[in-house]
Amino acid sequence: MTDRQTSAEAHAHHGYITDKDKYLNRLKRIEGQARGIHKMIDDEKYCIDILTQVSAMTSALEAVALGLLEDHLRHCVVDAAKVGGAEADAKITEASQAIARLVR
Amino acid sequence: MTDRQTSAEAHAHHGYITDKDKYLNRLKRIEGQARGIHKMIDDEKYCIDILTQVSAMTSALEAVALGLLEDHLRHCVVDAAKVGGAEADAKITEASQAIARLVR
Amino acid sequence: MTDRQTSAEAHAHHGYITDKDKYLNRLKRIEGQARGIHKMIDDEKYCIDILTQVSAMTSALEAVALGLLEDHLRHCVVDAAKVGGAEADAKITEASQAIARLVR
Amino acid sequence: MTDRQTSAEAHAHHGYITDKDKYLNRLKRIEGQARGIHKMIDDEKYCIDILTQVSAMTSALEAVALGLLEDHLRHCVVDAAKVGGAEADAKITEASQAIARLVR
Repeated sequence: MTDRQTSAEAHAHHGYITDKDKYLNRLKRIEGQARGIHKMIDDEKYCIDILTQVSAMTSALEAVALGLLEDHLRHCVVDAAKVGGAEADAKITEASQAIARLVR
Repeated sequence: MTDRQTSAEAHAHHGYITDKDKYLNRLKRIEGQARGIHKMIDDEKYCIDILTQVSAMTSALEAVALGLLEDHLRHCVVDAAKVGGAEADAKITEASQAIARLVR
Repeated sequence: MTDRQTSAEAHAHHGYITDKDKYLNRLKRIEGQARGIHKMIDDEKYCIDILTQVSAMTSALEAVALGLLEDHLRHCVVDAAKVGGAEADAKITEASQAIARLVR
Repeated sequence: MTDRQTSAEAHAHHGYITDKDKYLNRLKRIEGQARGIHKMIDDEKYCIDILTQVSAMTSALEAVALGLLEDHLRHCVVDAAKVGGAEADAKITEASQAIARLVR
């Protein structure tokens, strides 16, 4: 998988790096949400209240995914597009599959 | 909020109780997934690989939500339906709003 | 499939009947949206503008699904819950599967 | 909106053009699905059966959206990336917003 090796070698340019702390904080908060929902279930809270928290956590995860995806398009994909050819094509296919996993 | 107080008083009958351990284990795993994604970002892993893990975590959360919702329908909503009248109506409205939050 | 036959016999009570005209109008509008998107593609409009219309059409379909589902819970499921036993259980399972198809 | 005008002028290069007939056929089928659901409601078919058809139609629409988006990334966005600068940035922002509308 040359593509991925290239990416690994060039990992200093991964798009989200500039906002790394923002993403790390968001994941910390999401981990806290998981712990909060665990506690709600352990305390036998009302199902609908738990579902509300699950929806909030899902939205937080979606926001992370959309942010990472935009950063990926703006950096890795744009860089590959400049190179063009098979590498650009492979990056678009890969990004499109990631988008399909998010949508479905 | 008479409805919710009734629910609180009757919390021993919350539908998910029979599977409480299953849900607690799932939430522990989801918390672990959040920690794993945090580490991937900290280690500056490839964006697409992180997105794959975010999608897996979102699916795990959706499965929890669908399970809780089915339990809720099978117990709280069925019980309210037997009583009928305004309480049944309120439970259906509440469940429908929770479903809408999951779908959108 | 006794369950479904029962439902067929009792179809005068299908929950959405009271709002039948509303749903018929919505489907007419959705059909018009499909025709509009067909024309945009035929006219080679800008991809992002087409995607915006596809998203609007998806939202309209989701609203129909959520409305039908709420009507179904309020009528068919509540009626089955009053009967109780296996019929109620089967209706909840069936509704939960429909919800899962909407969420995923 | 210079961006969009540029796109309009260059519309012969819109990415989906190569598959125009495929998209036109899909939209025709989706229009037929809308008509079928309209008829099911008019005939007062069982709610769950209608919901199954609505889910199938939503999946068909999502497949169109994902196809259009991939074509858009592969052509318009890659072309803009080669130009670089503000136009590339604007295209990525625009595509990311379209993706967010699909995901939410």
